[in-house]
Amino acid sequence: MSLSRPPDGGAVERCRRLLEPALREAIAGLHPWNARMAGFALGWSDADGRPRAGDGGKGVRPALALLAAEAVGADAGAAVPGAVAVELVHAFSLAHDDIIDHDERRRHRETLWKAYGVGPALLTGDALLALAVAQLAATPTAMPLLSAALTDLVHGQSADMAFENRPWHGPHAVTIGEYTEMAAGKTGSLLGAAAALGVTLGGAPPELGESMRRMGRDLGVAFQIADDVLGIWGDPAVTGKPVHNDLRREKKTLPVLCALAGDGAAGRELSAVLSAGLADEETVRTAARLVEEAGGRAAAHALAERHLSAALHTLDTHLPGATELRTLCKSLTHRTH
Amino acid sequence: MSLSRPPDGGAVERCRRLLEPALREAIAGLHPWNARMAGFALGWSDADGRPRAGDGGKGVRPALALLAAEAVGADAGAAVPGAVAVELVHAFSLAHDDIIDHDERRRHRETLWKAYGVGPALLTGDALLALAVAQLAATPTAMPLLSAALTDLVHGQSADMAFENRPWHGPHAVTIGEYTEMAAGKTGSLLGAAAALGVTLGGAPPELGESMRRMGRDLGVAFQIADDVLGIWGDPAVTGKPVHNDLRREKKTLPVLCALAGDGAAGRELSAVLSAGLADEETVRTAARLVEEAGGRAAAHALAERHLSAALHTLDTHLPGATELRTLCKSLTHRTH
Repeated sequence: MSLSRPPDGGAVERCRRLLEPALREAIAGLHPWNARMAGFALGWSDADGRPRAGDGGKGVRPALALLAAEAVGADAGAAVPGAVAVELVHAFSLAHDDIIDHDERRRHRETLWKAYGVGPALLTGDALLALAVAQLAATPTAMPLLSAALTDLVHGQSADMAFENRPWHGPHAVTIGEYTEMAAGKTGSLLGAAAALGVTLGGAPPELGESMRRMGRDLGVAFQIADDVLGIWGDPAVTGKPVHNDLRREKKTLPVLCALAGDGAAGRELSAVLSAGLADEETVRTAARLVEEAGGRAAAHALAERHLSAALHTLDTHLPGATELRTLCKSLTHRTH
Repeated sequence: MSLSRPPDGGAVERCRRLLEPALREAIAGLHPWNARMAGFALGWSDADGRPRAGDGGKGVRPALALLAAEAVGADAGAAVPGAVAVELVHAFSLAHDDIIDHDERRRHRETLWKAYGVGPALLTGDALLALAVAQLAATPTAMPLLSAALTDLVHGQSADMAFENRPWHGPHAVTIGEYTEMAAGKTGSLLGAAAALGVTLGGAPPELGESMRRMGRDLGVAFQIADDVLGIWGDPAVTGKPVHNDLRREKKTLPVLCALAGDGAAGRELSAVLSAGLADEETVRTAARLVEEAGGRAAAHALAERHLSAALHTLDTHLPGATELRTLCKSLTHRTH
């Protein structure tokens, strides 16, 4: 995920202040060796353990949990264990994703495995996940929500990886429907769990938790499409990743899938270029241009907009007064617009 | 872990027949891509997905859970979700450990990462862990036991890895106490959780679960020491790993720590050899001989025996009639004797 700080800095900042002491206390319970690496992963310290100020991630998921609790009339404090849990699952997934994807940079710094090695980063990811589970293991209303999100998250990541072995064309090509299901799992499940945990720990009935889970899945699809757009056209100075990164890796991102789904000249040319393989930077640039010319970028925006609208509709139906929560959800995809 | 099939094949085999359909059903719920890799990891299929007969692991942990349930008068079926969960956590930990340790062989076959690559194996490990959590997420009596075991397991693995950066000598050398705590976490926590889940899902009160957890930690220390002995002197034809494997990697195993703790000539010579580094096979063989001459092997046996006795004492005190469970526990370390 490479998204800018949401515009509604006030509520998110307030949530961050509520989260941080609890998150730090949880991390302090890890083996010191993992705690040091976790501190680096969370942006609290340099690779050598020295404290640093700066961007430790946006805290979107914990903010969703805390604002959702407030939206059902509870004190945000009731949702802190859920907020800590989702932030820890997020940190776990980034630590492992960066190993899987061989990504060396994140948030303008080295990734965890790049700084400490694959084995230590892998194990620290496991420690973060174990710590996440421990936050809610004794809370019977909350634990199934976290567990379901974890299952869906890994399922989505696996689907995304399995896409790599699929062709660009023909009957076995990845469909928009498959992409949407993958993104709902990979990116939406944890957003949904955050909101669902917030309302549930805030005392709401299971049905509202289920609606929030669904809301989060839609939001996640919009969020993932925004990330896909950034992965091709994002400014490296902002994203902290090379331009055309996802295209160079021939990832099955939505703009490319949409571009190939059309039947214009640009789509056919793109198809030929991808089939031949993106061997050099010139070809990568050509492919990026063709995706745009074939309408892939516009179609991706439109689909993101549709899922964002669905998420906001769910929110407006079930939590009509949740202004801060709504603003946060809406802000998650604004960089694509 | 590389231990032979326990002598009490009857009970373990009966447990395996009870476990397998439930385990297969759980695995079938994974993304097909993960399910295929999980099938390989569990010994059910070849790397290309063809079913195979043969050793898919001993099923010691699920057997502990099922026999523990029977020991409190319950039907073993009550503990099946717990048995599935601990077997999945075990499979998760092996998948990740082999990546961390760069191990290429396990049970006379390629390891998961060697067969499919690091990224896919890592993600399949995560999927197995998520699936383990899902088995018990909605069972409030059981989930905290699984969660605590997971935390202790990762803590122990981290301690073991952190030992690698510690010196062989001087005030910062690894102590026998630290080793014992590490082994209780890395190896004992899941054995303890298995037995604790068994009695708990069988309807026993929390205090008995806590005793079983403690029993399992002692058992785990004995189990780990047995593994350490095999890691140095085990027959490659039986263990499936090269002889002197752990010594070559300069791991802080108990026989070596015990050998260095003595003050005889062999211990001092070993100390000098380790300080100089085990550069060639001749030196590795010399080190193995010195560990034995310095009494490291005998001391390891004695300490394993002590922890096994403590485990059996706990069992005899709290579950005096649990013959099959006792036989299983006792069998776990028999190969060292």
